[in-house]
Amino acid sequence: MPKSETTLVKKREHKGLDKYETETTKDIEQRTYQLAKDIVEQIKTNRHPTFTTKVRGLSNIYFDENKKYIQLGDKKVVRPFLNLGAARKFMQTMLVNDKCNEYLKEGKTASIREIYYELKRTVANTKENTFDAQSESDEVIVDVEHAVSTIREKLGLHAESKGSLYGDITLKDLKHDNDVFNCNSLGRGGWSIMSRIEPEEVEIVDVNADFLLVIETAAMYNRLIEEKYAPKHNAILIGTGGQAARGARRLVHRLRFEYDLPVIVFTDGDPYGWYIYSVIKSGSMALAAHSKYLAVPDARYVGMTLTDVETYGLQNVTEKMKEGDIKRAKELMSYPWFQSKEWQAELKFAIDKKIRIEQQALANKSLDFVARKYLPEKIEKEIFL
Amino acid sequence: MPKSETTLVKKREHKGLDKYETETTKDIEQRTYQLAKDIVEQIKTNRHPTFTTKVRGLSNIYFDENKKYIQLGDKKVVRPFLNLGAARKFMQTMLVNDKCNEYLKEGKTASIREIYYELKRTVANTKENTFDAQSESDEVIVDVEHAVSTIREKLGLHAESKGSLYGDITLKDLKHDNDVFNCNSLGRGGWSIMSRIEPEEVEIVDVNADFLLVIETAAMYNRLIEEKYAPKHNAILIGTGGQAARGARRLVHRLRFEYDLPVIVFTDGDPYGWYIYSVIKSGSMALAAHSKYLAVPDARYVGMTLTDVETYGLQNVTEKMKEGDIKRAKELMSYPWFQSKEWQAELKFAIDKKIRIEQQALANKSLDFVARKYLPEKIEKEIFL
Repeated sequence: MPKSETTLVKKREHKGLDKYETETTKDIEQRTYQLAKDIVEQIKTNRHPTFTTKVRGLSNIYFDENKKYIQLGDKKVVRPFLNLGAARKFMQTMLVNDKCNEYLKEGKTASIREIYYELKRTVANTKENTFDAQSESDEVIVDVEHAVSTIREKLGLHAESKGSLYGDITLKDLKHDNDVFNCNSLGRGGWSIMSRIEPEEVEIVDVNADFLLVIETAAMYNRLIEEKYAPKHNAILIGTGGQAARGARRLVHRLRFEYDLPVIVFTDGDPYGWYIYSVIKSGSMALAAHSKYLAVPDARYVGMTLTDVETYGLQNVTEKMKEGDIKRAKELMSYPWFQSKEWQAELKFAIDKKIRIEQQALANKSLDFVARKYLPEKIEKEIFL
Repeated sequence: MPKSETTLVKKREHKGLDKYETETTKDIEQRTYQLAKDIVEQIKTNRHPTFTTKVRGLSNIYFDENKKYIQLGDKKVVRPFLNLGAARKFMQTMLVNDKCNEYLKEGKTASIREIYYELKRTVANTKENTFDAQSESDEVIVDVEHAVSTIREKLGLHAESKGSLYGDITLKDLKHDNDVFNCNSLGRGGWSIMSRIEPEEVEIVDVNADFLLVIETAAMYNRLIEEKYAPKHNAILIGTGGQAARGARRLVHRLRFEYDLPVIVFTDGDPYGWYIYSVIKSGSMALAAHSKYLAVPDARYVGMTLTDVETYGLQNVTEKMKEGDIKRAKELMSYPWFQSKEWQAELKFAIDKKIRIEQQALANKSLDFVARKYLPEKIEKEIFL
């Protein structure tokens, strides 16, 4: 963990990419092609066309105790074409797979809403639409991800972008004139994190930092920039603006695994904030198949905690938890990755006291308290939950 | 309006700042000091302490037909201290005014949530809190803005930051090592727009563009970057990510008035999108006093419109309006700044047909349709609503 006196400007060497990160666009394109080719072969040889994807849902999701993240199991499901209930979905899958193949060949990308609109049409001589709602294409995208064993970003797809990056980190955008820029030199705004941070598109050229601080609220991100927290403590800052978008999560993951950068998460002290931490650390059930691309199992949680309320005398600035918060806290208590006795105690305390504490409540001490005392003290002494 | 053949790289000269933009931090600090000093004088001379601010609410809001934006009228209200119903608010106003004075003296800034937390405490020897909810301090901040005739940003306060900036525009952050950066060289993410874009903090050094395109969705902002729309059509892009945050609005305003950059707005074709346009163009009722800092009365609206649905054959990708959308459309119809016959027709059509059309629905033609045909054609021919 960072100690400012010993690590003033530490340059982190690039460790290289994990195997699944080095798959090229060509590799993935080939697999989408193969999926379609298999169907054609089946038809040519008079077999019923089918393809295989993975079972989703709780029955096939588990917490991998070795890897310390959520995983999708091996249960497979065969999707047939010649079945009244399945034919529509089969058709949709072929359309999405074909379109992704086209994106990869042409070097295009699209948002998941765009591919829905791009593929939506009325099938000739019928009143049937290819898709009636984005929820249908979203479902099928997951099938394709599983069928070709990759993530949507590597299929040319992406969700909305959100979040900002600040600190002594140099990036190169290989798809935009090889722009090279250092996120310490973009004023106090920082860099607007793209929805796609794949290694074949964005290279992390250099990182001079001891750790990465992931911050829930834009206001706290701004606060720490104003207080010069990043240069003083040799930190990179990512403001996620609430639940982290996939692009921000990919960036956190890459910084951890390509540069060995310790990841510390700083959220509001409430079930919503703790869940943000949980998703960064252990992945999510919705994206159980993709934890290896997204999760950071050794991420640490610095705060806010309800213990902080006592330690720092913040009793006057707690807020009441709503019913929804309490329900959410009970859910968190049941997750395998919240079973440590410290987390169980924290969650139980929250449920009993029905209070929550926001990051910005630290301003009650003074605006610079978070940067001058709270974070340095907790991180130095490794007071993590 | 921009014609690409004649204006390939047009350098826009800085026109200078409007008078109200050149007020220094010192000027504003002086006014907050004067407000407090007047109260002290009143007390010393045994008068009842009062201060004067402006009446808010519909009775004092009007649409200024000359300036073409929403204004707050001249009705004033005197806030007394020696009044059981008003004493608490008076005390709160003094606290906020004092804290803003401190921020300005010390060169600090705070989010409106931080100032709430910073000032929240139990008054000595009582059970009374200075503030019980942020809504109280938010109200008082408006009183102080009016009492000292400025905007919160110039008082050291700000809301959450949101939005991204892309294109050949060079900024200098005077409060961050005088960083100079060009938003065309930050990869495809662009610059994360700060919550504060005041001239005394952020200088717009240079702009090479023919117009500014303000875009509602992050996905469309990404699309236009991928299609190289900005360099091809000499545009600056701002993605607001929904309703524009104050920082983004200030930046749009400054680009219009400091660099004469025409502003074109591109949103979803629905009451929510049209309202985003309306706020950028005419200001909002909540911020009626601040339109001169925020509104851009000659902003033009390029789309989406329901006429586009016919023109570009998008019938298959419209969505149904919900009850709330229809109600909102009826409200828009009643606003003085939506009284042109074209807007009335558009709104009536929306209400009758109960349909809406999203920006991303243009992907139904092809991903690059928006950048290759839709925007160039409509902007070239000035097909604005």
